[in-house]
Amino acid sequence: MRIGILGSGSVGQTLANKLLTLGHEITLGSRSGSNQTGSAWAQAAGPHGQNGTFADAAEFGELVINATLGTGALAALEAAGAKALAGKVLVDVCNPLVFAEDGTLSLDPVNTDSVGEQIQRAFPDTRVVKALNTLSAPVMVDPTRVPGRHQLFIAGEDAGAKQEVVALLESFGWPGADIVDLGGIQAARSLEMLMPFWVNLWRHYGHTDFNYSFQIGG
Amino acid sequence: MRIGILGSGSVGQTLANKLLTLGHEITLGSRSGSNQTGSAWAQAAGPHGQNGTFADAAEFGELVINATLGTGALAALEAAGAKALAGKVLVDVCNPLVFAEDGTLSLDPVNTDSVGEQIQRAFPDTRVVKALNTLSAPVMVDPTRVPGRHQLFIAGEDAGAKQEVVALLESFGWPGADIVDLGGIQAARSLEMLMPFWVNLWRHYGHTDFNYSFQIGG
Repeated sequence: MRIGILGSGSVGQTLANKLLTLGHEITLGSRSGSNQTGSAWAQAAGPHGQNGTFADAAEFGELVINATLGTGALAALEAAGAKALAGKVLVDVCNPLVFAEDGTLSLDPVNTDSVGEQIQRAFPDTRVVKALNTLSAPVMVDPTRVPGRHQLFIAGEDAGAKQEVVALLESFGWPGADIVDLGGIQAARSLEMLMPFWVNLWRHYGHTDFNYSFQIGG
Repeated sequence: MRIGILGSGSVGQTLANKLLTLGHEITLGSRSGSNQTGSAWAQAAGPHGQNGTFADAAEFGELVINATLGTGALAALEAAGAKALAGKVLVDVCNPLVFAEDGTLSLDPVNTDSVGEQIQRAFPDTRVVKALNTLSAPVMVDPTRVPGRHQLFIAGEDAGAKQEVVALLESFGWPGADIVDLGGIQAARSLEMLMPFWVNLWRHYGHTDFNYSFQIGG
């Protein structure tokens, strides 16, 4: 499948490398098509990976992944263009993190809105699915880094889009039974609001190879 | 030990009943000393449980638990009085939930503040420990309702106060190894911000006998 990835940082590259090993064709998009990180990635990636602008990546992808910084996500998607994104599944991986000078984390938007919802409102013809924003990039593409059963969470308005995303996540090694559908895109609020807790756990454990695992009674 | 509990709702009563079985003396505090729920509880509780005002409960307790609604917590604590709370450990269990007419949940305060921090600022001589706000009342006092290992999280400025709270939680049946200290009271933000996710999981699972369990790799 042709997949466009917006954002050439570590999350975008980690997803891109995994998708290449699964036989997909990737365009990694950055603000500038001559972005150094993107170009270096494409050179190493071989014939099935190329880099370009956000618009190049969005046009290229049959499915598009938003792996930009959350606070710049809307600008990146505007640059990609509504036409290039229309009708497509957009997997929104980002979190709107704002770090103060003293290291304190807050989110913007938060509480009564989320980046996932902002994107769905701004691009009504795009089928947005919030996914993968609750864990580190290495674990996203290799759930065996964390022992035992542990869960992923998705949210979105389009049931068919969610099915496609579940299939993609299963191809990464996630058991379907551990992918929890929290409902419509409004649930993206609750998923993005996990991030301050996740950062505190990272500081507590000293690494990011951990994930939510729900033990269920009743 | 004499324990004052602010809030005579289901969380306050569940904690009170458990503490009675552990041999503590309880005063359950409400806005009014003649509160019907509180009076009914005290009648059923026997000789070691009584009810009264917020001030009665705070004065009575060697340790105080805030089990009020988060949006009314500061008012309840003002009614209890700074003098009655001075020097004491205050276990803050509450979440500042605001439900819109359509059932949508938001928090107030959120993101750059928390009820835990507000209380610590308003009552600087009180040793506030955020705890138990991440799970349902029945699981708070009976971790075996959820199978396997699963975790509690605490935050607060006073190491000695946190030790006392850990001991109390251990007496409820929580293994000390599963009580995760996330640091200072600012971490209360991240704990309170879990609540929208928890409510979505409640809707998903259809009951509240679940809890966070971290599978750790690395």
